[in-house]
Amino acid sequence: MNIAPMTREIDDLSRLEAIQLLAGGSLGRVGVTISALPAIFPVSYVVFDDSIVFRSVPGTKFAAAVSEAVVAFEVDDADPHATTGWSVLVVGKARPITDAALLEQVQELGLVPWAPGVHDDFVQIPLDIVTGRRIRASDGDGH
Amino acid sequence: MNIAPMTREIDDLSRLEAIQLLAGGSLGRVGVTISALPAIFPVSYVVFDDSIVFRSVPGTKFAAAVSEAVVAFEVDDADPHATTGWSVLVVGKARPITDAALLEQVQELGLVPWAPGVHDDFVQIPLDIVTGRRIRASDGDGH
Repeated sequence: MNIAPMTREIDDLSRLEAIQLLAGGSLGRVGVTISALPAIFPVSYVVFDDSIVFRSVPGTKFAAAVSEAVVAFEVDDADPHATTGWSVLVVGKARPITDAALLEQVQELGLVPWAPGVHDDFVQIPLDIVTGRRIRASDGDGH
Repeated sequence: MNIAPMTREIDDLSRLEAIQLLAGGSLGRVGVTISALPAIFPVSYVVFDDSIVFRSVPGTKFAAAVSEAVVAFEVDDADPHATTGWSVLVVGKARPITDAALLEQVQELGLVPWAPGVHDDFVQIPLDIVTGRRIRASDGDGH
């Protein structure tokens, strides 16, 4: 019963391709650990200063979880019907932006949080580990 | 510069609402730990037998990571432009489906993996912990 709808191939993306795709996106998912359990939340983001920048609400468990912890950040363009698309994964140590000059810069980026609330914290995930893959329809006969 | 595009409100979803939204989706993201680092991957899924069911490729690090480990599974309909939508998070212990009768049933579900490859493993995440939230435009004046 494992009939795929078409012949498809999967390619690893180069770091440059992956970062270009990240730069073109605006909504990602952050994977963190909260109370020893894994969790994933959608966030709006921008690529800035060789990092992912997003906003969080001070005092929340999420804000604590993205402070100085290694987190996963994923962006995709995955159409479940076409079963083609791409996904990019960033893994790095998230850190709050506290430098006044940098904070001023990121406040000018027009980054609107996905969820409502006073998202006064800005968080940065450096683009340390960036991987990705693209799934495409294939001309070949596949196997 | 923190001007939201409109007044919005956030509501927690009931377990029932969250499961109904899960049942209407087809693409989710699984959060796992691989080589002590967090990772997130898109997967196609169905809700079946009070659980999330998806497929994985035997022998991969991903397959190992979703075997008997507590994982996060997230589905959303998050439009970054409208900044409304919903997200649902499932947390539970993933387990491979090995029961022959159950395996036969899930093989009939027509679950096409998002990525190509021989996804012969079927994995189940029980709907133990299900939470969600909805973001909506508000008629009120907000604050």
